[in-house]
Order: sequence, then structure tokens, then C-alpha cells
Amino acid sequence: MAFTAVELIEIKRDGGALPPEGIEWLIRAYTDGEVPDYQMSAMAMAVFVNGLDADELGAWTTAMLHSGDVLDFSDIPALKVDKHSTGGVGDKISIPLAPLVASLGVVVPMMSGRGLGHTGGTLDKLETIPGFTTQLDAARFRDVLTTHGLVLAGQSETLVPADRKLYALRDSTGTVPSLPLIASSIMSKKLAEGLDGLLLDVKTGSGAFMQTMEGSRELARTMARIGARHGVRTVALITWMGQPLGREVGNANEIRESLDVLRGEGPEDVTELTMAFGEVMLELAGIEGGREALAEAVTSGKALEKFTAVTVAQGGDSSVIENPELLPVCAHEAVITARRDGYVTRCDALTIGAAATRLGAGRDRKEDTIDPGVGITLEAKVGDEVAVGQPLARVRYGDPARWVAQEKMLTSAWTIGDSAPEPPTLVLERIENE
Amino acid sequence: MAFTAVELIEIKRDGGALPPEGIEWLIRAYTDGEVPDYQMSAMAMAVFVNGLDADELGAWTTAMLHSGDVLDFSDIPALKVDKHSTGGVGDKISIPLAPLVASLGVVVPMMSGRGLGHTGGTLDKLETIPGFTTQLDAARFRDVLTTHGLVLAGQSETLVPADRKLYALRDSTGTVPSLPLIASSIMSKKLAEGLDGLLLDVKTGSGAFMQTMEGSRELARTMARIGARHGVRTVALITWMGQPLGREVGNANEIRESLDVLRGEGPEDVTELTMAFGEVMLELAGIEGGREALAEAVTSGKALEKFTAVTVAQGGDSSVIENPELLPVCAHEAVITARRDGYVTRCDALTIGAAATRLGAGRDRKEDTIDPGVGITLEAKVGDEVAVGQPLARVRYGDPARWVAQEKMLTSAWTIGDSAPEPPTLVLERIENE
Repeated sequence: MAFTAVELIEIKRDGGALPPEGIEWLIRAYTDGEVPDYQMSAMAMAVFVNGLDADELGAWTTAMLHSGDVLDFSDIPALKVDKHSTGGVGDKISIPLAPLVASLGVVVPMMSGRGLGHTGGTLDKLETIPGFTTQLDAARFRDVLTTHGLVLAGQSETLVPADRKLYALRDSTGTVPSLPLIASSIMSKKLAEGLDGLLLDVKTGSGAFMQTMEGSRELARTMARIGARHGVRTVALITWMGQPLGREVGNANEIRESLDVLRGEGPEDVTELTMAFGEVMLELAGIEGGREALAEAVTSGKALEKFTAVTVAQGGDSSVIENPELLPVCAHEAVITARRDGYVTRCDALTIGAAATRLGAGRDRKEDTIDPGVGITLEAKVGDEVAVGQPLARVRYGDPARWVAQEKMLTSAWTIGDSAPEPPTLVLERIENE
Repeated sequence: MAFTAVELIEIKRDGGALPPEGIEWLIRAYTDGEVPDYQMSAMAMAVFVNGLDADELGAWTTAMLHSGDVLDFSDIPALKVDKHSTGGVGDKISIPLAPLVASLGVVVPMMSGRGLGHTGGTLDKLETIPGFTTQLDAARFRDVLTTHGLVLAGQSETLVPADRKLYALRDSTGTVPSLPLIASSIMSKKLAEGLDGLLLDVKTGSGAFMQTMEGSRELARTMARIGARHGVRTVALITWMGQPLGREVGNANEIRESLDVLRGEGPEDVTELTMAFGEVMLELAGIEGGREALAEAVTSGKALEKFTAVTVAQGGDSSVIENPELLPVCAHEAVITARRDGYVTRCDALTIGAAATRLGAGRDRKEDTIDPGVGITLEAKVGDEVAVGQPLARVRYGDPARWVAQEKMLTSAWTIGDSAPEPPTLVLERIENE
């Protein structure tokens, strides 16, 4: 069957369903450069407006997935499980989680991203460890994974090239916030990793991409359905991202906090989420033991040992694991204080994430460079009682001009009220494909 | 005020109204190549879906209009009036109409287009006259217009460059059939001609771009409103394009029929529309006389004389005007005949136009070349009584293989019924700005 891009655009423009062979042709032709950006952006806008039904979305994801290499780790007998987060502020969970479950036998070929906008990225955080490389070629990726049952890497250039092109195009054409395009982008990359199971952390709230529970639920369901269609057992947990996770926001700061979690000394929320996710990953990998086994892996030092081994295998300097004070930290410090007595009723993830980004912890545009030592340490979070003048956050920054520009915005992240609010729930819902 | 293309796309994507300064910036930046095609196509799709309100459309048209040169004929004292047709089959009206009204003192700086799809183009028709050039530089355009009060030319490259770019983009991104984009494309080009008055022939029916009366009426109203906003008195006539106009379809054939009209020997429908349009153009030019003056200009030979003078001024060989049999005609002839006795109830413009195009009279793609001698002479039109075996049309073609491919389709254009249908109305409605 022969297709033209215009015919397919017209079908979607008019609200029709694209034939699966048409989708396959379109994604291939776009990847090959046969369909130009200007046709694909019209299609992306038509999809933004009219959506994709389940069959179209399945075909779209399959076509994306097959636009490049698909990894095959079937020679490794254990079940391969990865975790993906839709992105949040202070969300360092992957860093303690992956070595924790890997130390119990889950094989984790983890591919992560970089920070963009107000959210941080696992790769940026790991690279604050001197020498740690996240750009591994296929042979080294496989070697680290086979030896340690864990690898912490960036997306390979040869995986899902269609997504690389399409994401950049969506970013400049107002077509990022399209549920089917988000779901197929995430799932095509995860499915290309050759997984048996996948845990999706779908964030909801101000610091999340989906700010409403309804949107988060729909995204979770959609991705779980795509996983099922492709034979990968997929569990999505919807978690609250109204305030940052943990006490630390910023790249080196978050590595320090991750090490605390691996030592059993992490803040309660990060520890709790790490354990909750660990349980699901063990379940997906068919490994018994649950919470008790996870707690034991921390207490015994097995989890931290695994992180150390992988750090060394990926060229990292393990001395910073023993001495986290060696990690980068900016020279300047400022303190934000409470303007009144009361209880913190709001500690806004979006505002804090955006301030951290603009101080240099993240990127507004892909080409921006980050400052690993920029960090915000939260001294008061939702539910904490504070007195006037008491610190709400300590901020480390390298560029005083940037701090002047961000101070007011960062201060606006906290609301202090008269009475203690209901304590927030971390895991709001579990959604699973059948 | 500073804008980014993404912000503007997002506004339109979400159904908002674009600020006029944003539209102005967008069109200028697109014309300059600062905004790439892939952003403009996403915008075009968002406009297709969410439309433009009257203020946005006014700003959009103004921005297009000012993307290049705007002609100024204010040194010519008489009122300048042009006519534009939304395109039909057998629609040669401009060719007899322009010299007819020019012979009575209307100054007509006519800029026409080429045929695309199933519709013919005035330029292609005029160029079947040996030597006739429609590509005039600004000086020659002005010179012919000043001397003769009439010029018949193609769109200058320097007028509305934004439309040139945007139209090509829309053509390949499924965003042609958007009412605001159609209206602003037509009106920006006409307003750049420095007119005082404009007659719009908005076709409706199978052979028209707008196939429903409702769509045609909305397009007419929208364009009249844009004209008013720009201080150009604009009258739109909605005319029926269910069957081809006149007896001739094809480039040289239509020149022959136009000459018949100028001699007072044209078919009834073409003659009637020419006179109806002529009346409106006289009115827009503030010239008295109406139908009687028009009839006299034909009878006296003044109208034909004007056409001859302009043909010579534009390099054309006027001997074909005296001897139209010298115009190109293809070697092969085929006849389509009635399969039954009865009355013609349908003689479909779209089908006949598409067949003529594919026989070589028009272009499916812009880069196609046309064969000026391809023609279809209609021997029976709606309302005519026919006997089985009687000719419905005579077809001239150059490529027998193409004829084999089109014969069946062309034959399907006629429907013969038992009783005579209501005679069609040519001019269905007049719409005028206030």
C-alpha cells in the first residue's frame, strides 16, 4: 500500500483513524528524512487536537520502537526490569532504587535522561561523581549489565531515532503536551530496552508534567496498555509531586541524599518511595522477599556495595561515595527564612524546581550547561511547624546575579498557615495492565 | 513586544486569539526565514482547527499584504478595479470581462493565476496566444496599464512573498481548505494591487473549491469584511459551478470562446455572467451606463479592440484574434455520446475539469507542463434534450494513452433523465461589505 504524508495528515486532521500501515510508513519515512519536519509538525498538531485511538497508539509506538535498534538481553536468564519517572523535583529515587533491587537479583538495564525545564535528570546527577560516564557503547553497556546486573546509562543514539527527531520537533512546535505523543515517546524508548517488566512512576501535582490526577491516571493507563500490547508487564504508580522529594534539590546534593538512603539514613519520603518501588520491581522480576529483603539489603550494606561497584565499572571515583563532602558544592550560600510562625501548608515543587534550574542546576534549553554544585536544601516542608526567622531553605549558588533574580520567586514557594495540614500521601494509586 | 513562534502556536492550539503584534511578527519572521516551515505548518494546522476571529484575520491579511511590495496607482486618476474568481471549470470570464470594462474606462490591473487541480488558470489560457507574455516587470506592468487602462499579468514575485511560501507549505501539509487561510491568501494578493474596488466571484457547487452554499457564503462574507477593513469596496457574487461555464474547457478552446463573447457570439451563460460582472465593475469604478453601455462596447467592437491592443502590448500575435483557428488544437479527436434518450440533468464540473487536467489541459502538481491544444467541447449541458448516440462532448487530446485512462471518467460526468430539470441560476447571491 502506498501512502502520502498529505493523505495521512488529512485523515488525522479530520478526526479519522490512521491505518496501521500508514503509521508504520510515516514514522519510517520521517526517520529516513523522506517526510520533512514541516509535514510531521502538521501531523503532530493534528494528533494533539484529535488524539490517537488505542490501535493507532499501539501502531505508532511499535513504529517508533522499530525505527532503530531494539536491545535483546534474552541471554541473561534473570528478568530485566526498569523504572521510569515522568519527572519531578528532587526526584532522585532511581539512584538508590536501582542498586537496591539489583543487589537482590533484579537485572536493571536503566536508561535515563537529562534534566529539562524545572525537572532534574538522573544522568546529570550521576555525572557529579568525578569520572562517572553515562555514555556507554553497546558492548560496554552489555558488559556492565552482565557483570553487575545493573547499568546506569544514557539513551543510546541508535535506540528509537524517530523519538529523538520527533521530540525536538514537538519541543519547537507546541506539540509536547499531547498524551498519545508523550506515552508513545516514553514507551517506545523503554520497550527498546528489551525488558520483561516496567515500573512507571507517574507524577501528579504542581511539579509534575501532569498536574491533575485525572491526566496522570489517563497517562498511566495509556502507557500500561501499550506495555501490555508489547508483552511487557507494566505497573504504574501515581505519586504526589506537589512538593519536592526529600530535602535536597540540585545535582550533587541529590547524590548525597541518595547515598544517605542507601545507608539507611535518608529522609522519610525518599526512603518510603524507594521501598515501595523496590517492592514492585521485585514483584515484576519474580523475586521473593519484599520489604524485608529490601531493608536487609540496606542494613547489610549490599545495596551501597552494588552502587559502588557500578560506579567503578562506569569510571566513577568511588571515594566520593565514602566521602560525599568531596562532591561539588557552590561557594555562595543564602538562607530563606519564615516570615511568620505557623505550619508549612505548601512547599511548591514547580517553583523550587524552576528556581533551581535558573540558578544553574538545570537547563531551560538543551544546549545550556549545568552547575553541579548548585543546590537547595529544604529545611521546612509541608506539615513542619516553623517560627518566624527560622530557615526554610539553604541555597548554594555560584552566580550572585542569578540569586538576586531568583530569591523572590524561591521565597514564594512556601505558604505558612495557622494549622497543620493533612499529611500528604506519597503513592496515590496503582494501575496495572491486565 | 517580543514573541516566540512556540508561544503563538500554543495560543492558537488552545483556541485563544493571537495578538495583532504577534501575527505581524510571525508573518514577517516566516517570510524572512527566521520562523522555519515546521513551525508555520504547526500554526497552519492550529488555525485550520481553531480558526481566526475577525480581528486576527484582519491582522493576518495586513501582515501578509505588507510582506512585500504594495502597488500604488494613485497617479492614475480613474478608479482601479479587479475581479477575482475562486476558480472553476470553463471559467474564462476574466478574459472577455477585463477588456470589456476597460473599454468603458475602468482601470483594471488584473493579476491572475495558473491552473491547479481541476480548475483552469487565466495565465495558461492567455499564453496559448503566440508571444503573449504574462510575466511583466513593474515598469512594463505600469506602462501597459497606463497606456491601455488594462494589463493581464501574473502575480509579481515581489508581491506578497509570504503567500507564495505559505501556500506551498499548506499544499503539502493538508492545510489548504481553511477558510481564514484561503480568505487571507486571496485578499492579501488583491489588496497589494492598489485597488479601489474588487469584485469577487465566489463559486459554489461540485466544480468549486467550496461545494456548499453555506461555505461559499461564509467565504464571501469573510473576504468582503477584509476588503472593507482595508478600505477597498468589495462586492462578492456567489455563482453556480455545478457544470462548466460555456461550451469550452481547455486553454486554447477557452480563448476561442472568449473571443466569441467579445464578438457578441458567445454562449448564453458566459455572456450573461460577463455582463453581470461588468455591471458590478462599472458600479465599483463609478462609471455610468450599465448593461446598455456594455452591450454597446461589444457591438461596436470597442471591447475586442481593447483586447487586441493589450495582446499586442504584451507581445502577443494578434492575428489569432482575427483567425482563432490558428490557436493550438490537438491532433486526436474522440466523441462521447448519449447512451439513452432524455434530458441532461447533470454535466459535472469537477469530473470534466479533472478529466481535462489529466488529458494535459492542467496541472496536478505545479511542476507539470500543460498542453494548450487539449480541449473538451461540450455539446450537451444541463437542460438539453438528447437522443441516444448524439454527441455529448468532443474531446481533443495529444496522448492516446491518457485518453484511454480518462474516457470512462469523462463519460460519467453526464446524467440523462426522463424530464427536463429546472434551469440553473447563474448568480445566486450578492454579498457586499458595509
